[in-house]
Order: sequence, then structure tokens, then C-alpha cells
Amino acid sequence: MALQLYVGNKNYSSWSMRPWVLMKQAGIPFEEKMVRFDSFDANSVFKKELRAISPIAKVPVLVDDGFAIWDTLAIAEYLAERFPELHLWPREVKARARARSVCAEMHSGFGALRTHCPMNIEASLPDTGRLIWRDKPDVRADVARVCGLWGELLAAQPAGSLLFGEFTIADAYFAPVCSRIRTYDLPLPADLEAYVARVLALPGVKAWVEEALIEHDFIDFDEPYRLGR
Amino acid sequence: MALQLYVGNKNYSSWSMRPWVLMKQAGIPFEEKMVRFDSFDANSVFKKELRAISPIAKVPVLVDDGFAIWDTLAIAEYLAERFPELHLWPREVKARARARSVCAEMHSGFGALRTHCPMNIEASLPDTGRLIWRDKPDVRADVARVCGLWGELLAAQPAGSLLFGEFTIADAYFAPVCSRIRTYDLPLPADLEAYVARVLALPGVKAWVEEALIEHDFIDFDEPYRLGR
Ligand SMILES: N[C@@H](CCC(=O)N[C@@H](CS)C(=O)NCC(=O)O)C(=O)O
Ligand SMILES: N[C@@H](CCC(=O)N[C@@H](CS)C(=O)NCC(=O)O)C(=O)O
Repeated sequence: MALQLYVGNKNYSSWSMRPWVLMKQAGIPFEEKMVRFDSFDANSVFKKELRAISPIAKVPVLVDDGFAIWDTLAIAEYLAERFPELHLWPREVKARARARSVCAEMHSGFGALRTHCPMNIEASLPDTGRLIWRDKPDVRADVARVCGLWGELLAAQPAGSLLFGEFTIADAYFAPVCSRIRTYDLPLPADLEAYVARVLALPGVKAWVEEALIEHDFIDFDEPYRLGR
Repeated sequence: MALQLYVGNKNYSSWSMRPWVLMKQAGIPFEEKMVRFDSFDANSVFKKELRAISPIAKVPVLVDDGFAIWDTLAIAEYLAERFPELHLWPREVKARARARSVCAEMHSGFGALRTHCPMNIEASLPDTGRLIWRDKPDVRADVARVCGLWGELLAAQPAGSLLFGEFTIADAYFAPVCSRIRTYDLPLPADLEAYVARVLALPGVKAWVEEALIEHDFIDFDEPYRLGR
């Protein structure tokens, strides 16, 4: 098959989740190559396996007929160009620009949310979430910004829509944030809770979550809040 | 004029430099709006002025006929779409994908280089650079990765070329890295030194640097290594 997507552990790898969900939800066929997170040391199996295909040796990597594209945003742009008929970005020029702004913002920002609330699909950590919420103003600021941007975009759409109406790269980009909000039970306004529920109900997202739940692979370095399962 | 670009202090603002250099070098006319770095506190003049046009209140922001596009990578994509005849990304599909991979990598990575060697165009800090080089393995790793990616891309081009032959967004993306390498006198192989020299000799880059040099605005919080000038 022409397209292969290298991903990490589904329970933990938020970057891998984005292009996988994008492709599943958009109906782009691909072969999945799962590279387990043994460790991120230079001589780990993970790093060795990935170094053979990508100089930065991180997931995700998309391989198209032997040509590797790394970094989530570059993968998304590549897919948008390769499958123009799927309209992976919004069709209208300003909406498309806005979608790219919020994805680029996610790509380089939200460091506090990413650090303190690492993705952990199968875990339920509401007490941890309450402590984080109480003690980490930068996490509250990140969530406030997420709420601000979701709220503004959704206000321009009919009720029950995704960020730009139909599913786009932007929803795939925020899917791991939706998962984190659930795991840590972070407080959101009701209309945005409903957006989170809509994202988690997308078939592409549900497929990833189901596979994460059957993974049963406890990775210590991705578990700052649990000693075991 | 239709396009306005909001930028910060030219001596320090590496993110602002990228789209400014891109537009100058590609010959895209725009009106510059300079917003001085008084501070990044929520109630600074800088934040107040930017908050009026962009929710994240950071530079750069491109405003097209009243519509704001924030985040460097989104601005670059917007310009590439708006001026297709300028071929701001490489023309060939794989080269374009590779350019996007390395820009997305720059967009979210190289944290050690960015933290320890902040852009400071008018400063010359070779001793500081030597200490950093001796003591910060993560800076050495970032520079090694920059060398790896430049080296691989340049090896595929005729001698004396830019990363993808002609000037593209990728060269604009790495222009602030070239400036840092000079300020901190970081060691590079000779062929990559020559690439740095070529980038710094681009009229768009020279124009930015010249304006940075006449700025004479010493911003304490962007000066971890100097008490004054
Ligand atoms: N900017 C990259 C980030 C990718 C990334 O950090 N992936 C993690 C897993 S979610 C990884 O592979 N880490 C390995 C490492 O840091 O060495 C992207 O968007 O693809
Ligand atoms: N990801 C953003 C980063 C922009 C950024 O961090 N800009 C700095 C100046 S170089 C800024 O405005 N900082 C203000 C702040 O952090 O509040 C982009 O690519 O445009």
C-alpha cells in the first residue's frame, strides 16, 4: 500500500493520534506501523527503528511510497494537497487561514497543558486534575485559551458543528486535547463540553480510543501520576 | 495598503523576522507595524496593542484587509496561497513536503538553541557562545540537527544554493538561526558557514539586519548576557 503511518502507543502518543484520526475520519487508506515506546534514549528500539526512516526519529511519520514526511503539521499539509477532493482544510480562504493559525498555535504552544496533563486515554484522573487546576495557573491559562478559540469558532457555526462546520484538520489537531479534558476532568462551559463529546464520538476518534483501550501497555515514563494500573 | 505585518523589536524578535524577510525577499509589498517590546505582562502596552488584533497577542501578525492571521507558519501558508506565482514553497511535491517538515520542526523544536542563544542581532557574544557550547549538550544537539538538515538539503543542490535551490520559506525560517550562529560564534562546518553567509547576504535579510542595527533599544528581558550596550 502506498501510504504508511508510523505511530507510537495509542494510549499515550498524542502527536500520533492527530494524523491517524485525520486519515481514518477522512477515509484515507493507510497501513499502520506501530513503534512501541520502550524508551526515548538514543539506543532504544523505538529510536533505532525510527531513525532508519526519519532524521528526528519521532512519531508520527508518514511514508508515501518510500518518501518520509515527519512532523504532524507537515503531514497534514501533505495529505491536504494529495487529496484535494477531501477538503481536509476548510474550503473558504479565511476559514482556512484561521484553521492554520489555531493548528500552528497548538503545534508550538499549550506547553503547560501538554506537560502537566499528558494524554492517557484509559486513565481517569479527576483528583489529579483538580490538584493541577488548583495549583497550575498556566494550565488554567492554556484551557482558557482553548475555550476562547473553540468558543469563537463554534459561535460562527450552526449548533452541533465541528470547529469549521464539517470535520477538518483542526478537529483532528484538538482531539488529544479533548481526551485530556476527559481524563483529568477539567472544567469547561457546557457548550464546549458538548464539542468535546462530538469529537470523541467521531468514528475516527472512537477507533483510535478503542485500540488504545485494548493496548494494555503501561509505560512508566508516560505515567507521572500512577504506579500501575 | 492591503497587507500589514505586525512585528516586534528587530534586534530581538526572531519570529517577526521570518515573515518580514519572506515578504521583503519575495517582493510582496506590505505596511510594517512595529510594536515595541515594553514587556510581555498582561497589561503591557505591547500586549494591549496586540490583543486588539489577535487573541494570542504575539508577534508576528499579518493583517489582510482587516483579517488577522497569527502564527508564523500560518502566515507563511497564507502568503504561499495568496501569491502562488511567487512559489514561496518549493515547486516539486516532495521538496515542498520536505520544506514543510523542516519548518514545522523549527516551529515546535530547537528549544535549547532558542532559550540559550536568544536572537540579538547587534551583539557579538563569542565568549558566551563558547561557554554555552561547552556546558549545554542540548544546544550542541540542536546545532548538530541544524547542520544535519542543512547539509542533507544542500547536498542535493548545486554549490552556492539555498536550501531548496532558490529562496523559499525554509530559508526565511532559518534566517534567525543564521543570525544566532553569528552572534554566539557557534562552530559549523565550512560549507554550512557558507550557507549562513549566503542567507545573511540576501537583500531581505540584510534589510532586516540594517534596521535592527539602527534600533538602539536595549530590552533587559531579552538580554540574559549583557547589562548594557
Ligand atoms: N513536532 C512533532 C512532535 C512529535 C513528538 O514529539 N512525538 C513524540 C511522541 S507523541 C515522540 O516521538 N517523542 C520521542 C522523542 O521525543 O524522542 C510533531 O508534530 O510530529
Ligand atoms: N508560535 C508563534 C510564536 C510567536 C512568539 O512567541 N513571538 C514572541 C516574540 S518573538 C512574542 O510575541 N512573545 C510575546 C509573549 O510571549 O507574550 C509564531 O510562530 O508566530
